[in-house]
Amino acid sequence: MNGFTTALEVAAQLTEARLQAEIAALPESNVRAAMAYAARGGKKLRGFLVLETARLHNIPAEMAVQAAAAIEAIHAYSLVHDDLPAMDDDDLRRGQPTVHVKWDEATAILVGDALQSLAFGLLARGDAAPTPDARLALIASMAQAAGGGGMVLGQALDIAAETASAPLSLDAITALQAGKTGALIEWSACAGARMAGADPSHLANYARALGLAFQIADDILDVEGDAALAGKRLNKDQTAGKATFVSELGLEGAKMRACDLITQAQDALQTYGDDAQQLREAAQFVIARSN
Amino acid sequence: MNGFTTALEVAAQLTEARLQAEIAALPESNVRAAMAYAARGGKKLRGFLVLETARLHNIPAEMAVQAAAAIEAIHAYSLVHDDLPAMDDDDLRRGQPTVHVKWDEATAILVGDALQSLAFGLLARGDAAPTPDARLALIASMAQAAGGGGMVLGQALDIAAETASAPLSLDAITALQAGKTGALIEWSACAGARMAGADPSHLANYARALGLAFQIADDILDVEGDAALAGKRLNKDQTAGKATFVSELGLEGAKMRACDLITQAQDALQTYGDDAQQLREAAQFVIARSN
Repeated sequence: MNGFTTALEVAAQLTEARLQAEIAALPESNVRAAMAYAARGGKKLRGFLVLETARLHNIPAEMAVQAAAAIEAIHAYSLVHDDLPAMDDDDLRRGQPTVHVKWDEATAILVGDALQSLAFGLLARGDAAPTPDARLALIASMAQAAGGGGMVLGQALDIAAETASAPLSLDAITALQAGKTGALIEWSACAGARMAGADPSHLANYARALGLAFQIADDILDVEGDAALAGKRLNKDQTAGKATFVSELGLEGAKMRACDLITQAQDALQTYGDDAQQLREAAQFVIARSN
Repeated sequence: MNGFTTALEVAAQLTEARLQAEIAALPESNVRAAMAYAARGGKKLRGFLVLETARLHNIPAEMAVQAAAAIEAIHAYSLVHDDLPAMDDDDLRRGQPTVHVKWDEATAILVGDALQSLAFGLLARGDAAPTPDARLALIASMAQAAGGGGMVLGQALDIAAETASAPLSLDAITALQAGKTGALIEWSACAGARMAGADPSHLANYARALGLAFQIADDILDVEGDAALAGKRLNKDQTAGKATFVSELGLEGAKMRACDLITQAQDALQTYGDDAQQLREAAQFVIARSN
């Protein structure tokens, strides 16, 4: 998987540089400093999916990097807010103190808020897609993916599950995760087609399977992983008594389900032929993290 | 000012109906219920400014109401986050328990996040402005006004001021307020021109004077107002020892400055002639609240 890991690293560098330049252009403030901190590091898998699917649709990387930076800004905002004491209450993220620990809660709230605004600003730029209509399609779909029918809905279901009397069913966990992590992954994978004004449905099928596999792998990591390597607290779900794919399917069952999903994700790429090789390897990578 | 107060009420009803319909179209969740709660009531002055400046530029109300609902969604999100314990820690808003009191902090964080996404989604709609370029101009300017160079910057400066060793200068208070409340008011007043692809500079001048007068009036209300009428806790700034326009200029000085600004705002509308009468009355209204 050498080709893929190199492509992922290049995408991460390109995406982070674009995002950091955008943050650096803001007026100086504590919030700006904390935004830069929150945006650094991470795999930038979502940015990679944007750049790679853009390449499949002949969109130049200089253009696609705006959308890659935008989705990573949304992802970074969601992590900063998720880590807050009122939410997941995490002190460590990517091996470093979380924003509310290093600064304070008020700053962390504002950092998330400003990163979300910045994401939409990036997509409205003249160079974010070849046509105004394509830029508007990116914006409309991002509002959907991030908002109360997408990511935030997943988080709301997650909070509701914590106080529910019975553990969630497998279907309910799947619905929750489709919002919580799936919506942004799907947006990222569909971005290339949207920029080109093409039909994103094959990429959406790829992304839905990939996103679910990603979440199952996360649940497996939470049980089997090495906290030092993961750079975050593990065993959270088990401690909290939360229903997860692992608690419902067992460790082996979860691994098998993740493998099935990867095959499904790869099958969805047939129409793109050999050109989609990096996306196939990305799917392998997602579960390799937990194997 | 009968014509104006009627126009303000009509605008408030139209804007809130659009915003509530948008929220109601989301999948059911606690967050959706709390979004509807956060979006109800209020003067909807920003929505009025959008609708009224749109009318000046011959944009139909059915179109302008998307942008009016969008800016009120941003305003509502900023209030929900501002009221959080880590920020202003307010229990009462528009005479009712704040979102984190009625639900919880996690829900309040998510409600603000989802309202922001929803705002950008509204502006990306096919019917939000006559051309795709005009819609993109609304989105780019909103990202700017709401983000780390606009409203959030003002809030960051406000937080920094609380721990600063010396009270803020008048210039620093003005800069802070230009971000904190001025940026959204300016966006609202410029929206009509932006929708029509016209030059928003006269409306921007109007809005900058109006926004500053609005904030000075708020500072006066904080000292002189009736908490029951205002529907929120008063005397906050004085209790917190914060520098405000009143603490710097004195009560009479602040009132005179607000009056000067209103004249300035009205002068900026000359180019629009009699058509801008409602906007002139809106400027009067802003300081009438505190007299």
